[in-house]
Amino acid sequence: MSLRNLSINLATVRQQFTFGEAVDACLAQGVTAIAPWRDQIHAIGLPEAVEIVRSNNIRITGLCRGGMLSTGNRVGFAAAIDDNKRAIDEAAALGADCLVMVVGGLPKDSRDLLAAREIVAEGLATILPHALSNHVPLAIEPLHPMYAADRACINTLEQALDICDLLGDGVGVAVDVYHVWWDPKLSSQIIRAGAVNRILAHHICDWLVPTRDLLLDRGMMGDGVIDLRSIRKGIVSAGYSGPQEVEIFSSENWWKRPGEEVISICIERFLNTCNLPEEPLSEG
Amino acid sequence: MSLRNLSINLATVRQQFTFGEAVDACLAQGVTAIAPWRDQIHAIGLPEAVEIVRSNNIRITGLCRGGMLSTGNRVGFAAAIDDNKRAIDEAAALGADCLVMVVGGLPKDSRDLLAAREIVAEGLATILPHALSNHVPLAIEPLHPMYAADRACINTLEQALDICDLLGDGVGVAVDVYHVWWDPKLSSQIIRAGAVNRILAHHICDWLVPTRDLLLDRGMMGDGVIDLRSIRKGIVSAGYSGPQEVEIFSSENWWKRPGEEVISICIERFLNTCNLPEEPLSEG
Repeated sequence: MSLRNLSINLATVRQQFTFGEAVDACLAQGVTAIAPWRDQIHAIGLPEAVEIVRSNNIRITGLCRGGMLSTGNRVGFAAAIDDNKRAIDEAAALGADCLVMVVGGLPKDSRDLLAAREIVAEGLATILPHALSNHVPLAIEPLHPMYAADRACINTLEQALDICDLLGDGVGVAVDVYHVWWDPKLSSQIIRAGAVNRILAHHICDWLVPTRDLLLDRGMMGDGVIDLRSIRKGIVSAGYSGPQEVEIFSSENWWKRPGEEVISICIERFLNTCNLPEEPLSEG
Repeated sequence: MSLRNLSINLATVRQQFTFGEAVDACLAQGVTAIAPWRDQIHAIGLPEAVEIVRSNNIRITGLCRGGMLSTGNRVGFAAAIDDNKRAIDEAAALGADCLVMVVGGLPKDSRDLLAAREIVAEGLATILPHALSNHVPLAIEPLHPMYAADRACINTLEQALDICDLLGDGVGVAVDVYHVWWDPKLSSQIIRAGAVNRILAHHICDWLVPTRDLLLDRGMMGDGVIDLRSIRKGIVSAGYSGPQEVEIFSSENWWKRPGEEVISICIERFLNTCNLPEEPLSEG
């Protein structure tokens, strides 16, 4: 069985492993694709991270994350632009498939979502030339509406794709099931995204009932209510057959277990709950 | 100053007051419109509740709530239909402006949101004749996407209005800012709803940052990030000038304060944070 189409987002084991330890633990179980966070890269230093990635032939399905464009004032905006350009440089150095963009929520003391969305669009347009010249696609990740105030004011695939249409080449979307599973327009917008090759990443986890924390209570695939296989089918039908990337923030459960066990269960659930029968399970 | 356009949803003081006590407390501060929950009516008995409403000339801006159509199996569906018909009867007896519909989430052990949505549409169509003959408009309340699994699989105004279009006369929407404030299509869908007189209720509270509980951490108007006056302006422009109804579930704050204090603060915030300058503040 091949795990070619499984990626582990390193947030899933962020409490257990450094970048290097996470890579070793993934490789030990046959996982060759990961998605690191910038703080994990910074902790080890970019050159060493690049060396680890290259020497082990690791696929980086995305670098987390750019964005946070709308959170500050004008000084904050300029700093955010600079930081996003550095993130693009890092993604390029790592050979990442994309830079995941969590665009930012309301500016401090503001209630003006429309203004925040305009700032985000302006910010994306500002960094796009740098992304294009470095061959790093920007993956706009629409976040669940419960994060509209404090994390991302782009909250549906339709909205993200409308912005992509305005921006042109070099941008697409990260489809994270946790954020979009509820959307009545999910199927139609996945088709729309696929038709113009805008699907850059497919993140998986599960929505628990009850959910005890807005941020840190994501579930392992199969433990919640998301119809993962059905969504995967739509994404594959729309033309994206890249990896499914497991991204689980779970302060009270998965972050407290041994990292090797978490990765092992990710693999088992990926194979039994997420992967499609028609997707190749073996290679060569 | 008139409080004609302020209604207190009795969930806001459900830990403090019985139905009768809540009515007295509202009247004592000049509030003459309320929205009770069915359990509060049942606790006192419908005839006595009707008597209190009539003798005090109280406006019932909505009865909470019908719905939960998709939660059970087929037996559960039949029981839900019966229960919704009883809710319509109660709303008619109380002279309520509408019956608020929280339609239900996923059936037990199901991950099929599309199927749930079909059951909901079927259920609404089934009870609609009874609602029409009793002159009780059904107000579909799109709930925030974070409740898609366990409370309501109708999660945007657009989706609710699409269902209204299918059903025809006798249905509309309850616009609760807590559920829809994040929606990039909020303005356009409010205009759409108003153009065909589908806005049946306008509920207010606030979105706190951080939100500590998915259900029971709603904020008082002005304490969060929702641009209440801007949304009110859109709703009034769209043709709805009915009451703003304060509905706050707050287990750790507002439910722990004296009910009179909560109502007093609702009034103050309504006047200073929600009401439009151009809306009449005084009468006669």
